[in-house]
Amino acid sequence: MNNLENLVTSIAQQAKRASYKMATLDNSTKSKALEAIALELENNRSLIKAENALDIKQAQEKKLSPALTDRLTLTDQRINDMIAGVRSIALLPDPIGKLITSKILPNKIELKKIRVPLGVIGIIFESRPNVVVDVAALCLKSGNAVILRGGSESEHSNRVLLSIINSGLEKINFTPDAVQMLPIKDRVAVNYLCKLDSYIDLIIPRGGEGLIRAVVDAATVPVIKHYKGICHAYIDENADITMALAICENAKCQRPSACNSVETILVHENIAADFLPKLEKLFNKNHVEMRGCESTRALVPSMKFAHKNDWESEYLDLIIAIKIVHSLEEAINHINTHGSHHSDTIITKDREAQRRFVLEVDSAAVYVNASTRFTDGGEFGLGAEMGISTDKLHARGPMGINELTTYKWVGLGSGQVRT
Amino acid sequence: MNNLENLVTSIAQQAKRASYKMATLDNSTKSKALEAIALELENNRSLIKAENALDIKQAQEKKLSPALTDRLTLTDQRINDMIAGVRSIALLPDPIGKLITSKILPNKIELKKIRVPLGVIGIIFESRPNVVVDVAALCLKSGNAVILRGGSESEHSNRVLLSIINSGLEKINFTPDAVQMLPIKDRVAVNYLCKLDSYIDLIIPRGGEGLIRAVVDAATVPVIKHYKGICHAYIDENADITMALAICENAKCQRPSACNSVETILVHENIAADFLPKLEKLFNKNHVEMRGCESTRALVPSMKFAHKNDWESEYLDLIIAIKIVHSLEEAINHINTHGSHHSDTIITKDREAQRRFVLEVDSAAVYVNASTRFTDGGEFGLGAEMGISTDKLHARGPMGINELTTYKWVGLGSGQVRT
Repeated sequence: MNNLENLVTSIAQQAKRASYKMATLDNSTKSKALEAIALELENNRSLIKAENALDIKQAQEKKLSPALTDRLTLTDQRINDMIAGVRSIALLPDPIGKLITSKILPNKIELKKIRVPLGVIGIIFESRPNVVVDVAALCLKSGNAVILRGGSESEHSNRVLLSIINSGLEKINFTPDAVQMLPIKDRVAVNYLCKLDSYIDLIIPRGGEGLIRAVVDAATVPVIKHYKGICHAYIDENADITMALAICENAKCQRPSACNSVETILVHENIAADFLPKLEKLFNKNHVEMRGCESTRALVPSMKFAHKNDWESEYLDLIIAIKIVHSLEEAINHINTHGSHHSDTIITKDREAQRRFVLEVDSAAVYVNASTRFTDGGEFGLGAEMGISTDKLHARGPMGINELTTYKWVGLGSGQVRT
Repeated sequence: MNNLENLVTSIAQQAKRASYKMATLDNSTKSKALEAIALELENNRSLIKAENALDIKQAQEKKLSPALTDRLTLTDQRINDMIAGVRSIALLPDPIGKLITSKILPNKIELKKIRVPLGVIGIIFESRPNVVVDVAALCLKSGNAVILRGGSESEHSNRVLLSIINSGLEKINFTPDAVQMLPIKDRVAVNYLCKLDSYIDLIIPRGGEGLIRAVVDAATVPVIKHYKGICHAYIDENADITMALAICENAKCQRPSACNSVETILVHENIAADFLPKLEKLFNKNHVEMRGCESTRALVPSMKFAHKNDWESEYLDLIIAIKIVHSLEEAINHINTHGSHHSDTIITKDREAQRRFVLEVDSAAVYVNASTRFTDGGEFGLGAEMGISTDKLHARGPMGINELTTYKWVGLGSGQVRT
C-alpha cells in the first residue's frame, strides 16, 4: 500500500470504529450532537463566509459559469438554511431500534427484526458546500459514520464546514471520527475508498454521469445512485389540454437543470394536431428549443429534427424532444427503453390508461396528472435527502434517514438447538 | 461484441422484456404457471433421473468427494421435495401490488409506495440441481424473470430441469423467457452478465468465496451475497454450562458444512476452567479437532495451537477454534473484527450482557441462548430461500420472495405543478 492508500484505509477504519459506538446511541445524545453542530455553525458565520469567498474567487478566475458559481456561494440566508436544516433533522423520529416484525417460531424462539444503522457511508459529491452539513446531519441522526469527498471547486468551504462540525462534536466529547473527509486533490483516493468493503457499507456518488460510472466500475462496496434523469410526460389522447400545457411548462421550465425535469414529451397522435401548436406557442414564450420526430415536424414545421440520441439525452437545459406515438403501449415502451427509470407522468382523464401507465412504467416515481418535479425528499415529506436512487435495490427515489438504515435479525432463545 | 457476449446480451434482453409482462400478472396466473411446472416435473421423473445419472457417472469418473456426489444426486424423494416446494411457494401470499404506505401531500397529491418485482435476477450457483427449480419458483411467484448459471458438475440435471420448466410454461402460453440459463462451458459468460446493468437488476452468487469475489469484482449490476460464514458462540461468565455444551455441539456438529455452523467459540475467563474440560470431552466424542489460544491450551493441553488465521477460517468441517476472552467487550470486538457478520450467539443468563451483545454485534442474525444453525429461510418461516445475505443493503440474512421485490412511488394528481 502506498501512502495515500494507507491514509484512506486508516480513515475508513476510524469511521468503522466510530460507527460501532454510534449504533448504540440514544436519540437524545444524537440530538445533542446535532445542536452542538448548529451552535458552532452559528458562531462561525464570518469564518464560513471568508473561506467561501476563496472558492468564489477561484471560480471567477477559472471562469466557471454564473450558475455553477451561484451554487458554490454561501450567503447568510443559505447559512441560516443549513442551520435550520440541522435542527429540523434533529426533530425527526429516530429510526434506530424500531421493531419491524416479531414472531414466535414453532420452537419458541422469539424472532425479531430490528432497524439498525448501515454503518459507514461514503458520499462523493460536487459543487454545493451545504451538502457537507446536510449529509453529516442525516448520517448522525441515523447512527452512521460518514466519509465525505467534495469537489475541488468548493474545497475551502467544505474544509471549514467539516472543521466546524468536528469542533461542535468535540465540545460534547462526541467522536470526531463520525464525520471525516477524504483528501480532495488526489482523485485516486475515491478508487481506494470504493474497494474498502470491509469498512464501508454504502457509497452514494452524486454528480455527473462520468463520475458515477467511474465509482460503479471501481467499487466492490455497494453503490446507490442515479446516472441521470431522462423524465417523460406522456400526453394521452384523453388529456385535458390546459392541464397538459401547465404540467409541460412546469416540468421543463421551472428548473431545467434538475434531474426530475422532463426531457421528452410523448404525444398521442389523436391529440397532437390540437396540442402541439399550443405547446409551440408556450415553449417559444419560455425560450425552449423544440426537437421533434418527423410526424411532429409535419404539424410544427419550425421545429428542429430530433435525432436518435435526442431520445436518450439529459439536456438539463431549455431543450425538449417531442415524439408522436400511436398508442399508450408505444409510449410505455419508449419510456422503459429510452428513459432512465427516474420520474415519468401521464396526463389523461382515462382511468384505464392511468392504471396501465402506473403498473407498466418501470420508474422510481410514476405520476398521473402531476409534474415530475415532485420527486424530491422535501416534497415527499422525508425531511432532507441524501440523493435520489434509480436503482431498485434497497432504496428507490428520494433517500432520507430511513434509507440509511438496515435491519438485524435477533433470536431470543432458551437453549434451542436445530434438529 | 463477440458471439458469446452477443448471446448473453440477447438472453438478458429477452429476460427484460419477459419481466415487464410478469410485473403485470395477477396471483392466479402465477399459480397456474407454478402448477404447470409441478405437473411437468411429475410427468418426467424418469427423464430427470436418466440425465442426473450422467452427472453422477461423471462425478465418479472425476472422483468427486462422496459428499459432493451426494449433493448432485436426485432421488425420488428429492424430486418429490422439489415438486412439493413449487406447490408450497404457489400458496405463499403474493407480495406484488401491496400498498406499503400512502399519504396525501399538502398539495393534495395522493402519494403511494407500492411493492413491485425487481425485474431480472441473475443467479450463479454450484452443485445442487434442485436450486434450478427452487429459484425458478421463487422468481415466478415474485414476478421476476431469472437467468440461471449452474456448475458444470450438474450440467445434465440443470438442463433437463430447465427444459421441463419451460415446457410447463409453454403449455399455458407463459413466456419461456421468464426462466433462462447461460451457456455453462464458458466461464466468461458470467463476466458479461455481471456488466449488463441495463437489463439485469440483481445478481446473487452462491458458492465458494473465489467465485463470489470474481462476480463482485466484475459486476456493475448490484450483487447480494455472503462470502463466508464465520459464526461464533460466546460463552459468557454467567452461562448455563449444560445449555452452552448442547448449543456448541449442535452449532458445530449437526451439519459442519453449513454456512451457519459455528467456527469459533469464545469463552469468558471466569468460566473457562469449568467449561473447557467438559467441552473437550464432548468434542472428542464427536471427533472435532480443537485449536486453542495459549490460555485455552493451558487448561486443555491436548489441544492444537490456534494460529492467527484460525480466527478468520471457515472450516466447514469438524474443526473448531477456541479463545478465552477477558470480557464481553473483548468478545464483541473479536466477533466484529474477525467474523463474517453472518450469525453469532451468546450463552448467558445475564440480561445486561444479552442486551449489549444483541445491540453491539454487527451481524445479520444475533442469538441469545440458541444455536446459530437457525439462520435459514425455512426456519425463519420465509418459505424457501434464494440465499443468505451478509450485506447490509436491501436484504440481510435469509432471502425469500419479499427480498426479490422493490417499490415504486406513485403520485396521483389533478394537475399539480411545483412552485
